[in-house]
Amino acid sequence: MTEREHQFMQAAIDLARQGMQGGKGGPFGCVIVKGNEIVGKGCNAVTSTNDPTAHAEVVAIRDACLHLQVHQLAGCELYTSCEPCPMCMGAIYWARPDKVFFGGTRTDASAAGFDDSFIYEELKAPVAERKIPLLNIDREEAVKLFAEWIAKPDKISY
Amino acid sequence: MTEREHQFMQAAIDLARQGMQGGKGGPFGCVIVKGNEIVGKGCNAVTSTNDPTAHAEVVAIRDACLHLQVHQLAGCELYTSCEPCPMCMGAIYWARPDKVFFGGTRTDASAAGFDDSFIYEELKAPVAERKIPLLNIDREEAVKLFAEWIAKPDKISY
Repeated sequence: MTEREHQFMQAAIDLARQGMQGGKGGPFGCVIVKGNEIVGKGCNAVTSTNDPTAHAEVVAIRDACLHLQVHQLAGCELYTSCEPCPMCMGAIYWARPDKVFFGGTRTDASAAGFDDSFIYEELKAPVAERKIPLLNIDREEAVKLFAEWIAKPDKISY
Repeated sequence: MTEREHQFMQAAIDLARQGMQGGKGGPFGCVIVKGNEIVGKGCNAVTSTNDPTAHAEVVAIRDACLHLQVHQLAGCELYTSCEPCPMCMGAIYWARPDKVFFGGTRTDASAAGFDDSFIYEELKAPVAERKIPLLNIDREEAVKLFAEWIAKPDKISY
């Protein structure tokens, strides 16, 4: 790693600390970088905004996409103070930045009382064995949507 | 399943169809139910809002939490037209509804061109083998945040 990467990681850590101290939510921060410019940033704001999806990475991805007016982040790097949870990791795969840097690990997060490791294990478990019951109904009716999507002439894929 | 569950699933499918036809995004819809009332709803709006996190489930969870002024959805059921992707499944674990009903499967989604199965496989892969490089730096500096969080007297856990 060069000084550049350490500086952007420090920016993510600083955001995490400010957010935590300001009562916004948990101790997590994230910056998204294009070239040498920060184009999106966020800190955890779950409890202050009543939004369980307001993790630092999700907030930063939304911020960067709004700023750049894109729905994918090719050419960008993401720096987050902690290994992304499955929700944030999923968001990262949809946003497709080039590279992700993280500070703490999922184990560090779990040791501090966050559910990251539990959720990783749940996602590996068969659908029938999940802690939150996950039930399949009306598949036949639902899959018609996909046939309609495939046939739609003016769709925008993502 | 009773007629009740089929009706709420149909509401999710209807939202998916309306969203797709209205050019909002992909063919996905979701409703969140408390008792017999829909307290949150959403359709995919990724491409129309430049927000890669605007999947139906995430939109519906944010909508329900805003409506109920809570950051967790105990006592609620979530109905989604397709098996949630890892991002949405993660969001569901953070929001903690009592139960989830889905229509199409991740395989159906993949067959229609969506990355769900790919992302599920990636999340199971070791960090060092991911398609989007995931690099750990400055862990020592980052974990200080967790010690500060644990020591914080007025924190709101989630």
